[in-house]
Amino acid sequence: MAPSPLKFTRGVPPPESFPTAALSECAQSVLAKDGDLILQYGSAGGYAPLRALIAQQTGVAENQVLLGQGSLQLADFCARLLIEPGTPVYVEEPTYDRALTIYRRARARVVGFPLQADGPDVDVVAARLASGDRPALFYMIPDFQNPSGSVLSLEKRRRLAALAQQHGFWIIEDVPYRRLRYRGAALPSLLELAPDRVLQMSSYSKLISPGLRVGYMILPDALATRLTKMAEDTYINSSYLNQAIVYEFIRRGWLEPNISHLCELYRPRLDAMLAALTAQMDGLATWLRPDGGFFASLSLQASVSADALLSCARQANLELTDGRGFFANGGGDAFIRLPFCALTPPEIADAVARLAEVVRQLP
Amino acid sequence: MAPSPLKFTRGVPPPESFPTAALSECAQSVLAKDGDLILQYGSAGGYAPLRALIAQQTGVAENQVLLGQGSLQLADFCARLLIEPGTPVYVEEPTYDRALTIYRRARARVVGFPLQADGPDVDVVAARLASGDRPALFYMIPDFQNPSGSVLSLEKRRRLAALAQQHGFWIIEDVPYRRLRYRGAALPSLLELAPDRVLQMSSYSKLISPGLRVGYMILPDALATRLTKMAEDTYINSSYLNQAIVYEFIRRGWLEPNISHLCELYRPRLDAMLAALTAQMDGLATWLRPDGGFFASLSLQASVSADALLSCARQANLELTDGRGFFANGGGDAFIRLPFCALTPPEIADAVARLAEVVRQLP
Repeated sequence: MAPSPLKFTRGVPPPESFPTAALSECAQSVLAKDGDLILQYGSAGGYAPLRALIAQQTGVAENQVLLGQGSLQLADFCARLLIEPGTPVYVEEPTYDRALTIYRRARARVVGFPLQADGPDVDVVAARLASGDRPALFYMIPDFQNPSGSVLSLEKRRRLAALAQQHGFWIIEDVPYRRLRYRGAALPSLLELAPDRVLQMSSYSKLISPGLRVGYMILPDALATRLTKMAEDTYINSSYLNQAIVYEFIRRGWLEPNISHLCELYRPRLDAMLAALTAQMDGLATWLRPDGGFFASLSLQASVSADALLSCARQANLELTDGRGFFANGGGDAFIRLPFCALTPPEIADAVARLAEVVRQLP
Repeated sequence: MAPSPLKFTRGVPPPESFPTAALSECAQSVLAKDGDLILQYGSAGGYAPLRALIAQQTGVAENQVLLGQGSLQLADFCARLLIEPGTPVYVEEPTYDRALTIYRRARARVVGFPLQADGPDVDVVAARLASGDRPALFYMIPDFQNPSGSVLSLEKRRRLAALAQQHGFWIIEDVPYRRLRYRGAALPSLLELAPDRVLQMSSYSKLISPGLRVGYMILPDALATRLTKMAEDTYINSSYLNQAIVYEFIRRGWLEPNISHLCELYRPRLDAMLAALTAQMDGLATWLRPDGGFFASLSLQASVSADALLSCARQANLELTDGRGFFANGGGDAFIRLPFCALTPPEIADAVARLAEVVRQLP
């Protein structure tokens, strides 16, 4: 009998994490209280109470907060505004595949910096900058990186912030997983270290629900007006209904308990993943031991073909994401992303065991 | 005492038109029934039941319907896909200012065709095409055009559809006002006349509420996959919650009565506008007599400066939109858009009387 299908492809929250009834209550409440505003066209920056709240929490002015339909679209605006064909863009390698797509679509010249356990090698970055190849922006996911799970160390955060200030490039700091820390304490964000050089993007997709499509960007004053105008010129405004639901959810004091609940739900899944890797992958691969987020990842020791790997995994009814998609300029055959939040601990143990068997049998 | 402020600037539905309680009921219902799907990431084409419904109503396949956060963003995708810098794009003149912005941003060479009462002069269009200046697309609003209120005649629809087929350009047919007809019968859409050459865009902004941000595009098969991929690469997916609310509103049979209600609400406003123009503007301007939509418009007889006009109107506490924004390549000083749906009949009478006084006193 074929084993039941398991997926290591979906970096998404599980449906059991959605606070559906609470969101329905918020929807009713905001439509009753603020329907005339929510159901009308609005200004492109987004629903003012949520902007003000994020601004206050982040210590910026309200006009520096741009809400949008998820955060990816806002990254796309940045790409359209800041990148001309051939402009260098720096990324971690591996990095979020959809960000790569956005920079390629803007015809950037994407330069990847291999990730170490604590972020990219900053000496290599500094040398590249010293050579004069200044990027329009450096896209980074410092906390529980997608796809690797790595966390940028405090020392590297400080050095990268200083380099951005010294050389005058923008850092796009993508922090959707930052609050999903299952152990230990958060490091300062890049935004905190270099507020005039960092565009921080995040969303409520991983903290409440992806389907709300509420993301945001914290913008330096120098870019806020131009990016907000680009949003207006593209879609007039993003949905205030969704943004008001998020605001109401926060206003009622439901976000922090929800995050605690998510941490309780995901911590055993992370632990199951780390235990399974230790039990199954010793000698086959190396991996990091993240303290949060959605992803663990493997670098296989043997040289493999991604096509063979994916196809053998499929025969074991195990779906993997093609590792090559996370690499800017080739490579990634031996890289495997392991999203663990949407699987139960027994499923994780089963899937990792299957994966180890697949790897062992690879030609 | 200064007269109370009146605005001819907002082409938006009035808040009293929003079916707020019904939408709240729909939100509760879809979250209860279909929450796991709605609150998750989804495929970029949009919430499947609404896509299927629109496909069925339009006689196309489901994959030819792309839902989005309003329709403007979908027009932007078309511009990004179809236009290289310098590519000609044809528009009616005047036309929707936000569409102009999108084509300019794509660095199109925008070619405007002056509107007559029944649409652009098709002989002029045909001559331009015969000269070899083939556009990537012709953006048109055939029904109750924004900003003029004009309706494209059946004969011109047929000729333009034939020209698109003969010369192989796309027509983007923007029909947000098509169902808001207060008198008379609808003409065939361009999509009906040339389904393989027409991209039809519309939304529920004017039929239910703009704040839902649910728009859609009907795409020829040749473009559907590429545009849907562009949507996915830009924002993963647009909000299923909003789309499910719209679907539920329609499924419950509430859309058609809502449209009838809107027609009853807006018809007296159109009548008030036409009566006021007849009473006040004779000899000062020419105008069309639309049978639906959101807009009447004036072409002033005297040569005026838009700056002087706007500033004198402001002194009468009357806000006008700058007519020049609707013109692709200059002109528009003497053009005034008159949105009538968001004003009551007495407000319309008052505003038009004020406007006539302003025009009479212009230097």
